[in-house]
Parts: sequence; C-alpha cells; structure tokens
Amino acid sequence: MSEQLNGKKVAILATDGFEESELSEPKKALEQAGATVHVVAPDKDSIKAWAKDDWGQNYTVDVKLSDANADDYDALELPGGLFNPDALRQDEQALAFTRRFFEAHKPVGAICHGPWVLINAGVVEGRRMTSYPSVQQDLRNAGANWVDEEVVVDSGLVTSRDPNDLPAFCSKLIEEIAEGKHRNQQP
Amino acid sequence: MSEQLNGKKVAILATDGFEESELSEPKKALEQAGATVHVVAPDKDSIKAWAKDDWGQNYTVDVKLSDANADDYDALELPGGLFNPDALRQDEQALAFTRRFFEAHKPVGAICHGPWVLINAGVVEGRRMTSYPSVQQDLRNAGANWVDEEVVVDSGLVTSRDPNDLPAFCSKLIEEIAEGKHRNQQP
Repeated sequence: MSEQLNGKKVAILATDGFEESELSEPKKALEQAGATVHVVAPDKDSIKAWAKDDWGQNYTVDVKLSDANADDYDALELPGGLFNPDALRQDEQALAFTRRFFEAHKPVGAICHGPWVLINAGVVEGRRMTSYPSVQQDLRNAGANWVDEEVVVDSGLVTSRDPNDLPAFCSKLIEEIAEGKHRNQQP
Repeated sequence: MSEQLNGKKVAILATDGFEESELSEPKKALEQAGATVHVVAPDKDSIKAWAKDDWGQNYTVDVKLSDANADDYDALELPGGLFNPDALRQDEQALAFTRRFFEAHKPVGAICHGPWVLINAGVVEGRRMTSYPSVQQDLRNAGANWVDEEVVVDSGLVTSRDPNDLPAFCSKLIEEIAEGKHRNQQP
C-alpha cells in the first residue's frame, strides 16, 4: 500500500446498472493508494451492478446523494455501464454534484459510458477525452475533442474507453488526484 | 384487420437488447394494417429482447442485415432499449441501411433510445423529434428540435418517448406509411 493519496477523499457516483469492474477496481486502487472512498448514489442503501452481460451483485451505498456534499471530496469517479449513466444524466442532483468538482478544479475520472453524465453536466466543451465508442458522437456533438486512446488526461479530467483500460485509468486517476487541483479543470 | 397498408413492406431493424414491446407492438399493428413486416438484424438468426428490467425472450430474425436491401422496403421502424441502439449506432451497415430510407424519402419511426441510431446515421439535423428523456441532450446537440410529446410527426419521421406512447406511435406510423414518400424526409 502506497501513501500517495493519504488523507484524500474520493466519491464514486453511481446507480443501478454500473459496470461492476469500473466501480470495484478504481475503488480498490484508490484505497490501496491511501484514499478514503465513498460510493454515493441517489436515495438507495445499495445499488445493483451490471457484470458484463447480466445483472451482478449489490454494492453498499456509503452516502446518499441527498446527504453528500461535493466540497467534502478531493475527486470524483464515474463508472460506466448503460443503465447507470442513462439514469444519472437525468438526475439534476447528480449533475449539480458532478459540476461542483469542475467548479472547484478537482480531478474527475469517467470511463466507458460514464462521460454521458459529463455531457448533461455541461462540462465537456473543448476538453480532450475518450469514452466507449458508442458515446463518441455524443461527446463530439457536445464540443469535446474525442480521441481513441486507452486513457486521456486533460488537466485533471481522466477518461478511458472500457474495462480493458482500467489499469491505465486507475494509475492516471491516482496521479491526477495526488497532484491536487488543476486550474484548467473547469465547467 | 384494415387494408390501409396492403402491399407495403416494413423493416424493423434491431439487435440484442431491444425493448420487447417496442418491436412486438409496432410489428403487430403494422401487420394488422396489412403490411408485411421483416425483423432485420446484423448476422444473427435470433435476437434477445429486453423486457422492462431484465432479458426477455428470443425473436426470430427474418432477414440478416447483410442480405437486406433498404430499397425493398417502404418504411423502417427502430425500437429502443439501451443495448440495441448502443450497438446499432456503431454498425456502419446498420447506419447505411437507415440512411437509405431518408435518401428515398420513406417513413421512419423511432422510439425511446432508438433515435441514437439516427444521430449516428446523420439524419436528425433540423428535424422536430422526441425520444426517451435521457437522449434529449444528444439529439439537441446533433441539431434536432427536441420536444416532449407522446408522438411527433415531421414529414414522415415519427418519434415517441417510451412504451407508454406505443398506441399513438403505431397509429401515426401507419398513417405516415399509408401516405407514402415525404419530400422533406431526407438526410
């Protein structure tokens, strides 16, 4: 266990249908780097994973979104899956929570279909990003500079394409969180 | 059984994860109006439905996409679901097949998340449309004029929001197909 993220707090925002490995692996990597990680979800005690091609196990929610304050966290991670970001992008509280990290110049990681939430939070214009290929057109149309790379880092914004990219994603996310705030990470 | 669509052929383009009622109900309504309906899918003998909150039954594919010719059909219907349009919008053959209906001014119906396919086919700019609420921002960013109505008809393009809108959707789709080609239905 490294101590790179000692004293740092990270929120993972998700709801039912998050791709399991895209929550569990960043959580483990962040904790191993010394961070405290909270799973934040809208009004639920637990959320149901999507595990590749079917529903997976339930995960405990640490803090309900209505009780969560983005100012208490140093960074945010958004897993993918289809149902999860499809629901969160319609949830004004989830969008305000997400936007707050950009307003405060704090690192944010999003993987797979997770960037859909960033489109609705209005924070992708002019940013260099990647995502699951199906989300590419939506990100381009929202003004992002989409590229096909395993991990893309743009001033505290860390994005990846799919679960195969998780090692690179986790490693860059930890690096950005260790660096702290990024002036150009903004809405 | 009416005879409104006698002699008309309609393609329903879908793949695994289509919302069951959004394929089965339009198929039934179109057939009852006298049309011949073919389920067209990429390289499969059958496709698996999504039934509200879990996988549903398998549906027989009538024509494989690689064997299908859009010119053989008078109209196209695109069901929603999440996995289905998420896959089709990445499939160049599906996008070319879809675009062909617009090039030939033929009626197209899309419901729920189905309009994602239309975004990637490049045919939504300037069109008055609706969709599942989560797709609203993607359609607006692609240049569509998005409205919140149970069914929206714009020169042969028929769109609806979710399975609750199916009666209105099927009724307007039949009306547009009966009318035939629409000059302003174009890419």
